[in-house]
Amino acid sequence: MDFETHFSTRLAALKEEGNYRVFADIERRRGAFPTAGRHRDGEVQDVTVWCSNDYLGMSQHPDVVGAMVETVQSCGTGAGGTRNISGNTVHHLALERELADLHGKEAALLFTSGYVSNWASLSTLGSQIPNVAIFSDEKNHASMIEGIRHSRADKVLWRHNDWRDLDRKLHAAGDRPKLVAFESVYSMDGDIAPIREIVEVCEAHGALSYIDEVHAVGMYGPRGGGVSEERGLAHRIDLIEGTLGKAYGVVGGYVTGSTALCDFIRSFASGFIFTTALPPAVAAAARASIAHLKGSGQERQQQRARVAELRAKLDRAGIPHMANDSHIIPVMIGDPVKCKMISDILMRDHGIYVQPINYPTVPKGTERLRITPGPLHGTAEIDHLVGALSQLWAHCALSRAVA
Amino acid sequence: MDFETHFSTRLAALKEEGNYRVFADIERRRGAFPTAGRHRDGEVQDVTVWCSNDYLGMSQHPDVVGAMVETVQSCGTGAGGTRNISGNTVHHLALERELADLHGKEAALLFTSGYVSNWASLSTLGSQIPNVAIFSDEKNHASMIEGIRHSRADKVLWRHNDWRDLDRKLHAAGDRPKLVAFESVYSMDGDIAPIREIVEVCEAHGALSYIDEVHAVGMYGPRGGGVSEERGLAHRIDLIEGTLGKAYGVVGGYVTGSTALCDFIRSFASGFIFTTALPPAVAAAARASIAHLKGSGQERQQQRARVAELRAKLDRAGIPHMANDSHIIPVMIGDPVKCKMISDILMRDHGIYVQPINYPTVPKGTERLRITPGPLHGTAEIDHLVGALSQLWAHCALSRAVA
Ligand SMILES: Cc1ncc(COP(=O)(O)O)c(C=O)c1O
Ligand SMILES: Cc1ncc(COP(=O)(O)O)c(C=O)c1O
Repeated sequence: MDFETHFSTRLAALKEEGNYRVFADIERRRGAFPTAGRHRDGEVQDVTVWCSNDYLGMSQHPDVVGAMVETVQSCGTGAGGTRNISGNTVHHLALERELADLHGKEAALLFTSGYVSNWASLSTLGSQIPNVAIFSDEKNHASMIEGIRHSRADKVLWRHNDWRDLDRKLHAAGDRPKLVAFESVYSMDGDIAPIREIVEVCEAHGALSYIDEVHAVGMYGPRGGGVSEERGLAHRIDLIEGTLGKAYGVVGGYVTGSTALCDFIRSFASGFIFTTALPPAVAAAARASIAHLKGSGQERQQQRARVAELRAKLDRAGIPHMANDSHIIPVMIGDPVKCKMISDILMRDHGIYVQPINYPTVPKGTERLRITPGPLHGTAEIDHLVGALSQLWAHCALSRAVA
Repeated sequence: MDFETHFSTRLAALKEEGNYRVFADIERRRGAFPTAGRHRDGEVQDVTVWCSNDYLGMSQHPDVVGAMVETVQSCGTGAGGTRNISGNTVHHLALERELADLHGKEAALLFTSGYVSNWASLSTLGSQIPNVAIFSDEKNHASMIEGIRHSRADKVLWRHNDWRDLDRKLHAAGDRPKLVAFESVYSMDGDIAPIREIVEVCEAHGALSYIDEVHAVGMYGPRGGGVSEERGLAHRIDLIEGTLGKAYGVVGGYVTGSTALCDFIRSFASGFIFTTALPPAVAAAARASIAHLKGSGQERQQQRARVAELRAKLDRAGIPHMANDSHIIPVMIGDPVKCKMISDILMRDHGIYVQPINYPTVPKGTERLRITPGPLHGTAEIDHLVGALSQLWAHCALSRAVA
């Protein structure tokens, strides 16, 4: 077989469809968020980033930067081993205690990313609980889907956010171990799950509940414990998973739950065992970020105000966007080529960076701009964005929302 | 089902077998490697670390620390998004260029860890090359095994390092696409693959060759390009995979190969696409480390001298250890309980930290101490280690090597 030809042919097909991805080359500038330098053809353009998942700008917060710098200087740049073989430090342990406390759980377990925490935990639970069936919301993230797939457990999809459908399916499964996996804030539509109802259904069927709060931790709840904290439900959920790479502004992932649950995953998950631990400095920075956001609600309030302001101005300008209760504003385009074109024009003519979101991140035909306002976006920047979009909408004859 | 009881029962069984893992709590101290602080019951003990995979001490190198600190200060602590959505920075791109150059390849692709690079690349190649069969050395690392498993491609195990067996099996597979996956330095036995013979067999059968150089990059070859560089074979291998978390002293993983191959994995690998990029500062630190070790052979020479010194002194003391051509010295114990006991005594009475290696990292019955001397271990420390082991061997009536 000619492998090179196979690779090139598949890539050409992606280009043909408009689904080939070109990464923008961005230089983050601490102190200047959300402004960044965009590198292209040897030139640097100032742009405003509107699509970052560093939702609260914590990646430039002095406490977080300070903790990272200090720990690199005292401990070095890496952990030097897996958690079991010389890579377990006071910083990892302190972070796990911080995370357990954040969600009001007995224990927490740290992974190299949110992707790995989902993949490794679900593949372990699915393969190490005899005869378990996993009930997965049909819009779950790729990392959960791959973890379930890897486990080879029976998988039952339930309709997105439809707890009645979940209830029926759990009922139909009869008397076997059941695990229910879902998210709080769905990242591409920004809708929020009916967590209370889902938890009640889980309880009624004795199912283990597993929630991904990746797009909620740091941002929801009085201490940033996510939507499960905001709604007073954390103690009724068996496993809460999150990331350290979005609102907390660093990198890494975790699960929290009972001591036995975390110890079980720690002891059996290949994706936890066989990999170098995160650098101590990353753990220290993440911990500083969590600690700050436990005590400070200011970033969350400011984020909410900016989201509301942008939404209102988009409405006034007639730019259609999906309604939801979260901080995520999807502006639907519905075509990969058009979506990329709009994004390119925004960047080139207006210094606005909003990455086009295409397949496989969203289903084909639902291509969109996904806008994530944060506490550091000002009114001038919001007005500039809405102005640019309005101009484009006029120009490209894109459909406007009917008032 | 009572999940808690299930978890506790399984954990109790691990404890019973002696396979329950207790992580030592280590505080790395930059400037003092390989000495570290071991925390226990509120006390801190000075220990010499003999089991780190920060093989060359690069985690405390001024260039590496400096690059990380500087980039945290200029860019912040995190990337803020996936590579596609705002997380792609000049630092990631520069690191990928550095890696491609290291291995003399057209392109490179960065992942959050070596585990993820293997898992994501093999699962993508195995699922996206129609009808491919994957020929996997029977001792391949968990991350490769899980990637192959996840791909659901046909898998053929070949006898460890036995290129004749590989040849036979490739032949028997007939005319279909074939991928051969193996490692250069096997981390637990420290043996090195007959790369030339394997590559020739791959070429004869038109198989795609995939080598894991995780325990070799930075340490073998005139520029640290691994055993494939040392033996002048890199250009004949299709894909070279490595880590940034061991000899390079930071964290992260990568693959290198042709432009089309890397772009193919970039475009189709779930584990690459759906996860937050490594922090720019991690990328910058890794790049500084690679650049240093491209130009400097001193750390490698010093490591080799230390390995030779320890081996000779173990031989003189009659402490049995596995022969191999690498920097890894396995001292076989063959029982999990005894192995942990010896490790505990070394730590408690001698301030020596060598983690016991047990199942699932090695097969049951092959439990061992795995010793990794580096350029920073001095003669006094080597003598102290050999003295402590001799005392234990006398004490515990462990079998001595017959001269
Ligand atoms: C819902 C969800 N879960 C998990 C992840 C993975 O988290 P991380 O980026 O930390 O790997 C993501 C996005 O990256 C996500 O959107
Ligand atoms: C052979 C081999 N490949 C891959 C890995 C994973 O690399 P990383 O630690 O960067 O995840 C390891 C060890 O951790 C390994 O021993």
